[in-house]
Amino acid sequence: MYTPSPEDKFTFGLWTVGWQARDQFGDATRAPLDPVETVHKLAELGAYGVTFHDDDLLAVEPDRDRAIENFKKALADTGLKVPMATTNLFTHPVFKDGGFTSNNREVRRYAIRKVIRNLDLAAELGAKTYVCWGGREGAESDAAKDIRAALSRYKEAMDILSQYVIDKGYDIRFAIEPKPNEPRGDILLPTVGHALAFINELEHPEMVGLNPETGHEQMAGLNYFHAISQAMWHGKLFHLDLNGQRGIKYDQDLIFGHGDVQNAFFLVDLLEHGGYEGPRHFDYKPVRTDDKNDAWDSLAANMRTYLILKEKAKAYRADPEVQEALAASKVDELGARTLGEGETLQDLLNDDFDLDGVAERGYHFTRLSQLALEHLFGVR
Amino acid sequence: MYTPSPEDKFTFGLWTVGWQARDQFGDATRAPLDPVETVHKLAELGAYGVTFHDDDLLAVEPDRDRAIENFKKALADTGLKVPMATTNLFTHPVFKDGGFTSNNREVRRYAIRKVIRNLDLAAELGAKTYVCWGGREGAESDAAKDIRAALSRYKEAMDILSQYVIDKGYDIRFAIEPKPNEPRGDILLPTVGHALAFINELEHPEMVGLNPETGHEQMAGLNYFHAISQAMWHGKLFHLDLNGQRGIKYDQDLIFGHGDVQNAFFLVDLLEHGGYEGPRHFDYKPVRTDDKNDAWDSLAANMRTYLILKEKAKAYRADPEVQEALAASKVDELGARTLGEGETLQDLLNDDFDLDGVAERGYHFTRLSQLALEHLFGVR
Amino acid sequence: MYTPSPEDKFTFGLWTVGWQARDQFGDATRAPLDPVETVHKLAELGAYGVTFHDDDLLAVEPDRDRAIENFKKALADTGLKVPMATTNLFTHPVFKDGGFTSNNREVRRYAIRKVIRNLDLAAELGAKTYVCWGGREGAESDAAKDIRAALSRYKEAMDILSQYVIDKGYDIRFAIEPKPNEPRGDILLPTVGHALAFINELEHPEMVGLNPETGHEQMAGLNYFHAISQAMWHGKLFHLDLNGQRGIKYDQDLIFGHGDVQNAFFLVDLLEHGGYEGPRHFDYKPVRTDDKNDAWDSLAANMRTYLILKEKAKAYRADPEVQEALAASKVDELGARTLGEGETLQDLLNDDFDLDGVAERGYHFTRLSQLALEHLFGVR
Amino acid sequence: MYTPSPEDKFTFGLWTVGWQARDQFGDATRAPLDPVETVHKLAELGAYGVTFHDDDLLAVEPDRDRAIENFKKALADTGLKVPMATTNLFTHPVFKDGGFTSNNREVRRYAIRKVIRNLDLAAELGAKTYVCWGGREGAESDAAKDIRAALSRYKEAMDILSQYVIDKGYDIRFAIEPKPNEPRGDILLPTVGHALAFINELEHPEMVGLNPETGHEQMAGLNYFHAISQAMWHGKLFHLDLNGQRGIKYDQDLIFGHGDVQNAFFLVDLLEHGGYEGPRHFDYKPVRTDDKNDAWDSLAANMRTYLILKEKAKAYRADPEVQEALAASKVDELGARTLGEGETLQDLLNDDFDLDGVAERGYHFTRLSQLALEHLFGVR
Repeated sequence: MYTPSPEDKFTFGLWTVGWQARDQFGDATRAPLDPVETVHKLAELGAYGVTFHDDDLLAVEPDRDRAIENFKKALADTGLKVPMATTNLFTHPVFKDGGFTSNNREVRRYAIRKVIRNLDLAAELGAKTYVCWGGREGAESDAAKDIRAALSRYKEAMDILSQYVIDKGYDIRFAIEPKPNEPRGDILLPTVGHALAFINELEHPEMVGLNPETGHEQMAGLNYFHAISQAMWHGKLFHLDLNGQRGIKYDQDLIFGHGDVQNAFFLVDLLEHGGYEGPRHFDYKPVRTDDKNDAWDSLAANMRTYLILKEKAKAYRADPEVQEALAASKVDELGARTLGEGETLQDLLNDDFDLDGVAERGYHFTRLSQLALEHLFGVR
Repeated sequence: MYTPSPEDKFTFGLWTVGWQARDQFGDATRAPLDPVETVHKLAELGAYGVTFHDDDLLAVEPDRDRAIENFKKALADTGLKVPMATTNLFTHPVFKDGGFTSNNREVRRYAIRKVIRNLDLAAELGAKTYVCWGGREGAESDAAKDIRAALSRYKEAMDILSQYVIDKGYDIRFAIEPKPNEPRGDILLPTVGHALAFINELEHPEMVGLNPETGHEQMAGLNYFHAISQAMWHGKLFHLDLNGQRGIKYDQDLIFGHGDVQNAFFLVDLLEHGGYEGPRHFDYKPVRTDDKNDAWDSLAANMRTYLILKEKAKAYRADPEVQEALAASKVDELGARTLGEGETLQDLLNDDFDLDGVAERGYHFTRLSQLALEHLFGVR
Repeated sequence: MYTPSPEDKFTFGLWTVGWQARDQFGDATRAPLDPVETVHKLAELGAYGVTFHDDDLLAVEPDRDRAIENFKKALADTGLKVPMATTNLFTHPVFKDGGFTSNNREVRRYAIRKVIRNLDLAAELGAKTYVCWGGREGAESDAAKDIRAALSRYKEAMDILSQYVIDKGYDIRFAIEPKPNEPRGDILLPTVGHALAFINELEHPEMVGLNPETGHEQMAGLNYFHAISQAMWHGKLFHLDLNGQRGIKYDQDLIFGHGDVQNAFFLVDLLEHGGYEGPRHFDYKPVRTDDKNDAWDSLAANMRTYLILKEKAKAYRADPEVQEALAASKVDELGARTLGEGETLQDLLNDDFDLDGVAERGYHFTRLSQLALEHLFGVR
Repeated sequence: MYTPSPEDKFTFGLWTVGWQARDQFGDATRAPLDPVETVHKLAELGAYGVTFHDDDLLAVEPDRDRAIENFKKALADTGLKVPMATTNLFTHPVFKDGGFTSNNREVRRYAIRKVIRNLDLAAELGAKTYVCWGGREGAESDAAKDIRAALSRYKEAMDILSQYVIDKGYDIRFAIEPKPNEPRGDILLPTVGHALAFINELEHPEMVGLNPETGHEQMAGLNYFHAISQAMWHGKLFHLDLNGQRGIKYDQDLIFGHGDVQNAFFLVDLLEHGGYEGPRHFDYKPVRTDDKNDAWDSLAANMRTYLILKEKAKAYRADPEVQEALAASKVDELGARTLGEGETLQDLLNDDFDLDGVAERGYHFTRLSQLALEHLFGVR
């Protein structure tokens, strides 16, 4: 029970368990991991796939061709898939003012070249989603960046990349990953909303969706369950990054479920019963106090927590008392059109109701919330 | 100097200076204001216009028709305009679970009726913008609201209202005002980004834009200057609410400029030099410690602060050292297309540059930020 | 199971279930509650006691003497205790700039009189703790308040009140309740730490401790479990206010456990196994969408959630795997003195160890956290 | 004008301008700086002194003795002082679970040894303040740390260090630097308040005070001007770290004044007119986009901004209109004792006043705030 299998579609970035735990204030506490070892470990633990930044493959083997060859062999040996890939446009000092939106045009051009090089590899490995996290696209000072020009350059880059994918005939869609701040003071496309809006201005909006990360939304104090709901409503949940965060502070990248537990429960319920078919991708970091074995444990903890919540969501939905409470709270009534079938606006305008009587009626949300919590606690 | 005139297009909501200072923890500290008196005072202080919620007109005169008549007369006597109006869908207990997205369908229908009634008045008074702040559209518990259904109902309401305006031939556009939370735990369309995205799903996206409020974006830790820039980039800055906020906390509605001073400076620069032509609308509250005269002073303080910042922005732009610093920081270079005129992607892919050399170059943002601050301080 | 009894020492403020749900943006959604009815309901639900602000007693009976008489009778009829009382120094407009630290000396004097009047009643009703929440002690503008003078006046008030209690021979201790903001922009003694520090400057520090509220610490992004631990370490946890909050935003006053679930679990563990003997006092508000019956349900939900977590904490502590994990993580080793018994500093200075070897060792916190979560989920 | 001189007592940490700009997501963008060069540059720019972590001296010269010798020579050549020193207990992996409060006792012992070694050097160089920033003292999971035991170990370490200073006869006091989070999820002694409280439990509270950092308080949404006021009220402002932060997010370490401008103004006013005599120490980081020359510019920008604000504070205080506004707002009346000289509590209890009349009176804070802002803007 709670043992993952590839059918669960759990995937992990090489950079998660492979993070050496070098942070803003401290040196690495773990040695680099060989991607080959990671792939084998993921397979052993029941994962479905692995994802990577271009530079992740070079962790222990500096020769790119050999690194790719080793990686492919490990995939073949284990059957692990690569549903997603991405580009590192943030570590190298050249990206200090951004990639696609750097004030320096040469850097912008280089950023596009770097993406395209890895897009070819992604296509070759069968990735269907290509994530763009613009972590360095932003500014610390309002004087330093013309935001409208920056958005135009961002659009230009996405349009170029989309055209490239079309021209090459790749079966790849892009997924933008929003984040409000860190490592820049203010990052462009700071939330799921801003990225959704941006996509509508692109040449090929149908090719671009979102990769929302739990902690990133929560760093803006926003509700991740709401964010994913809105992304799904727009048909733009192409991929997602599950992890944990404890409030508005630096990006914690905790294990999924180790942050806002309640929100994680409703999120799993939404993913499992709301029609999301993509990978359940974890983008977390083993805490810096972990050693290598602890880090392997943390891989398992993400998947196990998800499966626990999945089972709870199922029980929650099946509970007749919950169903009754949902009805009493009129949760389903929100699915009914406000203007009835065949009704005209004039009908609605002519309508009347008992204003004060309706105002007095309770929605009984307390009972519903408590039932949900008790399912979470496993006491029902 | 710094004395406002109608040409400055300063406008205020009746509910601002008219706020009686009843808050979550305390009773009113000021008597209700007669809208007629407010209109006269605004005119005397140099404002251009006044805005209102339907219920604001009834502050001292409970008869709606008489209240409207009095208001119109004051407008006529003073020449004050009404560029914007809005509906109160949050004070009455019937809206406790929202208006357009209440779980209760009867409430949703009533909310639409209430907007339409005031739309007619708005049109009659010449308002060109109709603001929708969905402050009660949201939830405290993730169990209590099907977010996707709620967004569908929100869309339904906006589509009905747009059609009504078209049918009536009103020259009115809608402006959605986002807010992340308070009075609900999580509010739908929590930021400028989410509202911009939402608009794209409407039947008449061209009729709906934004009314972003300074403090609302800052309550999510977001940069208001960025938010307004993105709204302008999408062509959706239909109106705006200027005020002050000091960080992520309850909605403070301070005087404009009394919150994040630096951000206010860059915002004014953007509005004045970025092509915004609409009213400079203040949506603030005189602090609860103010008496009636203090509250009048606070009206003046908003306008005066704006004018001070406007003059500074002009001097900042005109300063040759600033111009040189902007160039040195390549702020303008971001306006240049990444892929040159006539260039192909292959040209870009074949291109090369001095990676490490460029990486080492500084952007000199420190100098630029310091120059901006010194203009703000008035020491240049 | 999970049915409360007076032995559990659950207590509630009259102002919790009695909150009429008038908020910053909306009118009351519930009628006032008769304190007599509340007392009877609390007894019926298994509570131990009830607490009150002076003004709470007047909710439906404006005559103070009669209101007190009714309240006493209800206490006698039900056996409910009054372990704590407090003063409302925030609702009346006279307190708009604070009570003990208002810039107006007349107000400061009145605030002390108001407290003393209710102290006499508290003593008569057997309250052992008198809470001081200085919600209006603060400022919106840094220009408006001399903070050092304000702290001196705060101290003066606490010293006067302590002396009064001594003179009267009351068996009462004071408990200060910190809060970072709302309803003021910045409130004095914003966190548990600031209040603990302040107490040390008083004439009678032994008579003054803390009443920390879950949501208030979390509104500053602080960890409530840490806060309570530090208050206990100082011997100053005189009382506490349990509720729920979902991140840094306005004061939500949710049901206990309906906010940060994980933190609530560790808090209950700390209270139950850390030596706290006082009442488990809930200071929450039924959500505004609740009707009167929902509100009664919310009383029960607080207690039930506490009891669920209490049982989980017991099972967590008893689990041999948890015990082993705690040892492996050296959680207990922190209890050992750093300088051994009989050891000199010179011994420590002469000591040496395997720096790099120790640096490499993991702390296995991931395993421990996951075990705790699984107890919370009820899957072990 | 605005040109610093040693009389201004401006000091900088070697680690500020020396930061190589390696952050959580990116590699270094600047080469290491030779401390000798930094000392000379600081002297040239008009600074008074320099401060350092033990490890900072080894930036380019790995031999500790030679590094110290070089540093001393630079001090002698320039006349720069060393008013403060500190220990790095956060970069090395051995401190991953803390120094004084690591769960591993061996690490705790090593931490004390490391401090003592640098204390001897600090004393030799004439430092009067020794800062303790416990950045790694904390936890990500509530399961992982017994907070009360941790505080006891923290106290033990401070007591040992205090005794060592006494035994050696050093003229040194300790200053604790609070921070709420980052690099740990929750750090012990998270705010000025918590650290002030903690000090009262030490063996030698008189030897330990605070080193509050602007951004650290603001990362908890707290008001730095309030924090410094309270630290001064307790007589514990031994030192301070000036910088800039833009809201609740990761630790930005911006240039002083480049964050919350208003708060910086009132802080300088407090320091200059409130009796603080210590160094004005800047603990900021040149932004990662800066090159070496930009970084030198950033040193100057900190001092210049301080001097600009200092001049404004002087003008603000001297302005008769401000003085009148302060009186009208009764800011000074808060300095008057609430219970008059010779008055008894009974006198106060017998007193009466016009409750509603006083309640109606405004405090005129709007006018006062606006005057302050206009001084900040330089338009008066």
